[in-house]
Amino acid sequence: MSIKSINVRNQFRGTIKEIIEGPVLSEIDVSTPAGIVTSVITTRSVKELELKPGSEVIAFVKSTEVSIAKL
Amino acid sequence: MSIKSINVRNQFRGTIKEIIEGPVLSEIDVSTPAGIVTSVITTRSVKELELKPGSEVIAFVKSTEVSIAKL
Amino acid sequence: MSIKSINVRNQFRGTIKEIIEGPVLSEIDVSTPAGIVTSVITTRSVKELELKPGSEVIAFVKSTEVSIAKL
Amino acid sequence: MSIKSINVRNQFRGTIKEIIEGPVLSEIDVSTPAGIVTSVITTRSVKELELKPGSEVIAFVKSTEVSIAKL
Amino acid sequence: MSIKSINVRNQFRGTIKEIIEGPVLSEIDVSTPAGIVTSVITTRSVKELELKPGSEVIAFVKSTEVSIAKL
Amino acid sequence: MSIKSINVRNQFRGTIKEIIEGPVLSEIDVSTPAGIVTSVITTRSVKELELKPGSEVIAFVKSTEVSIAKL
Repeated sequence: MSIKSINVRNQFRGTIKEIIEGPVLSEIDVSTPAGIVTSVITTRSVKELELKPGSEVIAFVKSTEVSIAKL
Repeated sequence: MSIKSINVRNQFRGTIKEIIEGPVLSEIDVSTPAGIVTSVITTRSVKELELKPGSEVIAFVKSTEVSIAKL
Repeated sequence: MSIKSINVRNQFRGTIKEIIEGPVLSEIDVSTPAGIVTSVITTRSVKELELKPGSEVIAFVKSTEVSIAKL
Repeated sequence: MSIKSINVRNQFRGTIKEIIEGPVLSEIDVSTPAGIVTSVITTRSVKELELKPGSEVIAFVKSTEVSIAKL
Repeated sequence: MSIKSINVRNQFRGTIKEIIEGPVLSEIDVSTPAGIVTSVITTRSVKELELKPGSEVIAFVKSTEVSIAKL
Repeated sequence: MSIKSINVRNQFRGTIKEIIEGPVLSEIDVSTPAGIVTSVITTRSVKELELKPGSEVIAFVKSTEVSIAKL
């Protein structure tokens, strides 16, 4: 199934640098122009999407999940 | 209260470009080196933090909120 | 940009039944075989995706966002 | 403590099909009329709720966590 | 439908102090022994649950949504 | 980097009582005046913040993540 577009505004295109695999969840570190973006997804999804270091991906996040800190 | 550090790995430093204010929630668009990062927070927090266009902020998000799409 | 696949396991395909538009966020009610699935996204995204009643969409959610209640 | 009702609109009633238990978090796969709904909760909660394959549960999610993709 | 128990570990029992109602989402401020806990839910849910100042409620949140800052 | 203030309204100050460390994520139990607040964060963050039992921390959560149940 091909998806035309998603609503999430915050999308960071990059390349997987490292995967730390746990029994249930895995950490995916993505190298992007914005620096490393870290995602935690199920290990099942890692396998179903056949993710591995070097895979081209988009890391994305809903706006309602983004917090703001003042400097 | 000064906070030394937070656990969230994904931090994007930038400047507020625009605020769309609603009665309960507001959209904050932050210009970062990674492009625009959009956050939705309560309008009360916008006022308490005295956020306005030009404010220097960090937009941040927990790793467990970040999804991955394969290209 | 066409996305091949996303990691989120919980995907509900359906048709938009109703949109309640607010100044910042909008509620999207999607008719699916599982019943109505309700999503809240930014009103900007509603416009950028040109969503309207009748649009075919997928409502999706990360596994880490799903809670369990015992009956 | 008995709860009368919760605010979350998206509730999927079903039966636990499988539990993948990790040291901190566990994946719960729930068979529902909408297909498999996957939840990740703490392993402590799995034990405290005495969840096991066959348990009748409701998987639920807040509307603000649901994203929309256009087909 | 009566729910016996939910998996979310972080539950704060209290009384609604104030509701700020928007067209799509509403802010609910709950007085608890831990201080004010603020929740944002859909205005539809506010109406369906017939929430109003003085209502006894539990504010709850998944562990995966809780962040940690070091002082 | 010192942060002056964050937008999240729900902040619970306390002391770490216990850490359950997994390969990817860890559970942090924080003793607060409101009782135990449980957080799940990446094990990497636990190490980078040098969290251990006895550390003084703030557990915090966005308002949009807080649900309401009626008693």
